[in-house]
Amino acid sequence: MKLATLKDGSRDGQLAVVSRDLASAHFAAGIAGTMQQLLDDWNFLSPQLEDLYTTLNHGKARHAFPFEPRQCMAPLPRAFQWVDASAYLPHVERVRRARGAEPPATLRDDPLMYQGGSDALLGPCDDAVFASADDGIDYEGELAVVTGDVPMGCAPEAALESVRLLLLANDWTLRERVPAELAKGFGFVQAKPATAFAPVAVTPDELGAEWQGGRARLTLLVQRNGRPVARLATGPEMHFDFGTLLAHLARTRRLGAGSIVGGGTVSNADAAAGCACLAEQRALELLADGAARTPWMGEGETVRLEALAGDGHSVFGAIEQRVALAAR
Amino acid sequence: MKLATLKDGSRDGQLAVVSRDLASAHFAAGIAGTMQQLLDDWNFLSPQLEDLYTTLNHGKARHAFPFEPRQCMAPLPRAFQWVDASAYLPHVERVRRARGAEPPATLRDDPLMYQGGSDALLGPCDDAVFASADDGIDYEGELAVVTGDVPMGCAPEAALESVRLLLLANDWTLRERVPAELAKGFGFVQAKPATAFAPVAVTPDELGAEWQGGRARLTLLVQRNGRPVARLATGPEMHFDFGTLLAHLARTRRLGAGSIVGGGTVSNADAAAGCACLAEQRALELLADGAARTPWMGEGETVRLEALAGDGHSVFGAIEQRVALAAR
Repeated sequence: MKLATLKDGSRDGQLAVVSRDLASAHFAAGIAGTMQQLLDDWNFLSPQLEDLYTTLNHGKARHAFPFEPRQCMAPLPRAFQWVDASAYLPHVERVRRARGAEPPATLRDDPLMYQGGSDALLGPCDDAVFASADDGIDYEGELAVVTGDVPMGCAPEAALESVRLLLLANDWTLRERVPAELAKGFGFVQAKPATAFAPVAVTPDELGAEWQGGRARLTLLVQRNGRPVARLATGPEMHFDFGTLLAHLARTRRLGAGSIVGGGTVSNADAAAGCACLAEQRALELLADGAARTPWMGEGETVRLEALAGDGHSVFGAIEQRVALAAR
Repeated sequence: MKLATLKDGSRDGQLAVVSRDLASAHFAAGIAGTMQQLLDDWNFLSPQLEDLYTTLNHGKARHAFPFEPRQCMAPLPRAFQWVDASAYLPHVERVRRARGAEPPATLRDDPLMYQGGSDALLGPCDDAVFASADDGIDYEGELAVVTGDVPMGCAPEAALESVRLLLLANDWTLRERVPAELAKGFGFVQAKPATAFAPVAVTPDELGAEWQGGRARLTLLVQRNGRPVARLATGPEMHFDFGTLLAHLARTRRLGAGSIVGGGTVSNADAAAGCACLAEQRALELLADGAARTPWMGEGETVRLEALAGDGHSVFGAIEQRVALAAR
């Protein structure tokens, strides 16, 4: 099943079911008004939406309308939890080595995860508005899951059973603000402004065999200003699967329905695949040539992120954002 | 105005107005069903609740009922944001010195703040359930504010205008998990389980002159197992006021209505005032005697936190929690 949240002037938007080919949509009104309502009562409501999804895919839904990603908010326009990991080790290793720092000794055993802000998430085509171009504006292409309730101390396998939806995210990062916040040890407050999400959230069964072992085997495409810069495999090099990440997070506390947990910037050891963020691209340049030549994002520049299934279809629709600077 | 959220079996509970003396309450139904609904549309809804509050205080509310803190959830049972600071410097200095670490060089100019989990907050009398007694279970008594919408780049004075409510919090911390997460630099994921809140949220005007310059001048009382262990002034030694904390947080992103921002463990330089958390008490013992003798909290132990106004009345009602261990 594919779901989206459409803009209606409210803070939480209006839940809609989207056809598998992303061509048409149908409001979920009468079943669930918002995505959080659905997540709060998933077992009761989702079968009703699955029925609507089937009808929509057969072209039989009576009030279907053309699906327009620009009308979308984030699938969860605000969430009660957004936690992001760094599950792709080449990303961590490259960025640390470029800073002259060793990767943490526990890199392969102990997931790096930070608690992010989730009070104001961005839709797929919303401008990304920043305070200053001097902050080192960077995108990060990544996959995330949305959970149901997860009990404290949940094992990885059981935690995976709680995964309700998969998302594609653009985890905007202000690189020049990262070192100072890392040094304080308290995580990121100013370095991680609002994260954006692709228009459509999908249930894991939509991926078929491409969802396996807590990893989604998709191809992430990244374009900057319309020019392709990366084509990355999301599955094989995800060191910690989503079950392991959820279990780490739930080690000492339960997670509420609607928690979003990200896998971190997708990264492949083969540098020819390109990079899903500029920090990593710059790190490769620095390590190879002694200087980073790729600039951070500036006002008016665009980024496009899309994940393809093996048959080439777009799973989540695309994130297409423009960088803007806040008026002073 | 005083507000509470009463348990009704739902995830977000039922909003109620509470009388100034905490003796009676009245459901806000018909005006706003939940606290978040109120915060989303504060300017329209709060005057209607103020009218109900006045009627209730005069004993004229037709469907008033006795107020029972044990029936309360957290005022926001789940929130879209919970960020906590360390605005009381004696706390930071003592805890770091006891670890043999210097306080950060920027301690007095750059607020320490971390993004916390807010998907499952605890009511004032809910058991605090932990995974293991070996994690160094500790309470932290602190004040917090709930905001309306705060624009990006907001100045401290303007940010203060966005403060809708004040709260009393118990920011449970697993001390034995802190050093490893601090070393990773990504903030706290496992070291900060669910935070608890006192039953009543109050609008700043309830404090009169005791709310001044973004600081609440109250007295925080702490009891462990029924024995008083601290009596702390919350106002004068709060180094960063709430306006400064909000501006720091909103430096690079806007904050959504219903964001909770904490001032961190209340602490006074005068050691005779006691400590609002065990880590600080143990630090004082270690620095004085070379060994910490106060144990962490164990199963079945209780903590009670309450904040008094100058005239001695309880502002928020009390947090009274028992430590429990999750079944294995």
